[in-house]
Amino acid sequence: MAGKIEARLAELGIVVPTPPTAVANYIPFVTVGRLVFVAGQVPFVDGRIAFSGKCGAGASIEHAVASARACLLNILAQLKAAAGGDLDRIARLVQLRGYVACTPDFTDHPKVINGASDLAVQIFGDAGRHARAAVGVPSLPGDSTTEIEAVAELA
Amino acid sequence: MAGKIEARLAELGIVVPTPPTAVANYIPFVTVGRLVFVAGQVPFVDGRIAFSGKCGAGASIEHAVASARACLLNILAQLKAAAGGDLDRIARLVQLRGYVACTPDFTDHPKVINGASDLAVQIFGDAGRHARAAVGVPSLPGDSTTEIEAVAELA
Amino acid sequence: MAGKIEARLAELGIVVPTPPTAVANYIPFVTVGRLVFVAGQVPFVDGRIAFSGKCGAGASIEHAVASARACLLNILAQLKAAAGGDLDRIARLVQLRGYVACTPDFTDHPKVINGASDLAVQIFGDAGRHARAAVGVPSLPGDSTTEIEAVAELA
Repeated sequence: MAGKIEARLAELGIVVPTPPTAVANYIPFVTVGRLVFVAGQVPFVDGRIAFSGKCGAGASIEHAVASARACLLNILAQLKAAAGGDLDRIARLVQLRGYVACTPDFTDHPKVINGASDLAVQIFGDAGRHARAAVGVPSLPGDSTTEIEAVAELA
Repeated sequence: MAGKIEARLAELGIVVPTPPTAVANYIPFVTVGRLVFVAGQVPFVDGRIAFSGKCGAGASIEHAVASARACLLNILAQLKAAAGGDLDRIARLVQLRGYVACTPDFTDHPKVINGASDLAVQIFGDAGRHARAAVGVPSLPGDSTTEIEAVAELA
Repeated sequence: MAGKIEARLAELGIVVPTPPTAVANYIPFVTVGRLVFVAGQVPFVDGRIAFSGKCGAGASIEHAVASARACLLNILAQLKAAAGGDLDRIARLVQLRGYVACTPDFTDHPKVINGASDLAVQIFGDAGRHARAAVGVPSLPGDSTTEIEAVAELA
């Protein structure tokens, strides 16, 4: 029997990706009590970084929003694994921290990270509303356009 | 009856601002158990970003310190809301993470974020002493000079 | 009687440094319940920043890896203090957040922060495996090459 969130994902036409494995000597999430700390997710899609380049230097807002959305899907995949496969066990998304690779003159970081925040609220409803930080960085692993960390609470 | 922290704020001549609303699809704080995660606060004052520009490229240390102080006042406003209006319920400030918009040659990030840390200790005393990170970034939302995230513990 | 982790450190030939004091108005760690939040550690060795400069602008990967390793040793020192001197009380390392001072064209942040992650796993074994983020920044306090924050869980 599909859960409430899985049903919502089906409505939205979203397939939870295979959770990316960590690219170095760390693990994709750690659970402490009811808190899940999710490692920074880059826009891996089908095993490669699907969104690269920097805002203000060739990467459009639309490209960066899609990158943020890809990061959120990978966070979703990690949360599903953290919840033993049952996304209904995610009581709430607590926090997202979004890094945007950009030039010094770029100022629209919130618009970019909305690609993740909006999708989180579409999927989880009120439980997807989170505290957030969005900041610029000169570069990210593998020239990713965005990287996003998450903290969630398990039911 | 004013609380202990409100009395201290009055002594310091500090008025807690109206907590800024989130500028995107997220919320300004999330409480999990006794931990409050406060979203990254930029130097909004009276509804606009009051401190913009970068350290090393026109923004002085004094300007940046004032920006960090404005961020801390907004964190204070969010914590007051998180504590149901009673700042005495903030058991302690756990962590501040300060981002300083700056050029690559800038090295005085700690001096800048002291604008927030010093004010936190003035207001909360020992309970205001926190773990901290201070880092540079190429740019922040709306060309803010600083952005600061916080974690606090409720009594 | 030396603990399990102290014995492992002896095997590895690692001496836990004196925990660096905070360079500003904050404290090096805060404990809330079983979580320890460690302030951002720069590569202080014997009271001075031992690794400075930026990846992509003179600092080699090897230099940056050594910088990340120095940050991890300082995190270790702080965790030892947080655990009342007994590193066996560290139940697990939950999270590392690594900032790499670099140019916009740098893409090997994970390799750099592996200097910390690999050492954590050498010291703590499976309990040292952590969630992680690695991002670039234009500059860090005192021209440090890396800065790393940590969250750990006490037994």
